[in-house]
Amino acid sequence: MGNLYIALLHFPMFSRAGDVVATALTSINVPDIARTARTYGVSRYYVVTPLASQRRIAERLREFWLGDDEDLPNRKEAVALVAVREELEECYEEISQAEGQPPLLWGTSARSNLSYPRLGWEEARALLRERPVLVLFGTGNGMSEELLAACDALLPPVRARRYNYLSVRAAVAIILDRLKGEEP
Amino acid sequence: MGNLYIALLHFPMFSRAGDVVATALTSINVPDIARTARTYGVSRYYVVTPLASQRRIAERLREFWLGDDEDLPNRKEAVALVAVREELEECYEEISQAEGQPPLLWGTSARSNLSYPRLGWEEARALLRERPVLVLFGTGNGMSEELLAACDALLPPVRARRYNYLSVRAAVAIILDRLKGEEP
Repeated sequence: MGNLYIALLHFPMFSRAGDVVATALTSINVPDIARTARTYGVSRYYVVTPLASQRRIAERLREFWLGDDEDLPNRKEAVALVAVREELEECYEEISQAEGQPPLLWGTSARSNLSYPRLGWEEARALLRERPVLVLFGTGNGMSEELLAACDALLPPVRARRYNYLSVRAAVAIILDRLKGEEP
Repeated sequence: MGNLYIALLHFPMFSRAGDVVATALTSINVPDIARTARTYGVSRYYVVTPLASQRRIAERLREFWLGDDEDLPNRKEAVALVAVREELEECYEEISQAEGQPPLLWGTSARSNLSYPRLGWEEARALLRERPVLVLFGTGNGMSEELLAACDALLPPVRARRYNYLSVRAAVAIILDRLKGEEP
């Protein structure tokens, strides 16, 4: 099984008005997505933002949960997967070093009319058995074109051509389940 | 297709210490799970708590998002599915009236060693095509025995016999995807 990495990106994202912006960190995304990542055997969960003040907040959240005195070993185990980084390139380099080969870079988007290469779920699961993969998740109104264009491929939208306005927390959960979930 | 309803329950739940308690409302669960519910065609999302003060908070969150002046029609459409109720029995009665028959009551639990009747995913999807169903989600450390025992059946745990410490937001997303998700 190839190792799976995920990154929650805050730049360059579309704003609601269609501008390209750096979005603000949503605190709940740090422990919540970490728990989902741990459940599905993700190797590392990157929280990536170019804003130094936002990185400090993310680090503090991470340290708060790691240092928590209460008996919450499950929570600690999850938050230990979090790594806060300034740029996507750092994550890509780190993974390449750790794995001895660069990861496949997969984007996610709720938009179904994009012309970038798309993987099917079966194809994605097969590739994941052979190669390290970094799956990117956007915030705000989604990943900008330059980011989508830089990916090796995009995963399919969760609900094509329907109402699809999931939170990123829900999208991560569903996508990891589709990539790694098992039927009992 | 039978109509699907979900309820987020705050009593009677296990606390971390194993006591049976009423848990506090987590604000993010109102809009977040509403968006997931809307994405998967859920008919109504009940937020159920016996505590009057907590119901007022939930109602205020609902009204805040419904009355929002900004152009967020997707958000409004989702939050319109929310109904705040004091007891599970009310939800059950309402659904029975609306559907002309009582719903099947399905519980969810991360515990895999429970002796209550369990459905498989295929079986659950088949039943859902024929009958109205109300799926219950717990908070805190999960639904107490009296609640689990009152269900017609339990859905399978998401990740049996492994680390499984998902947030309820993530669990709802994965379970609705397994019940109603489509392969593209």
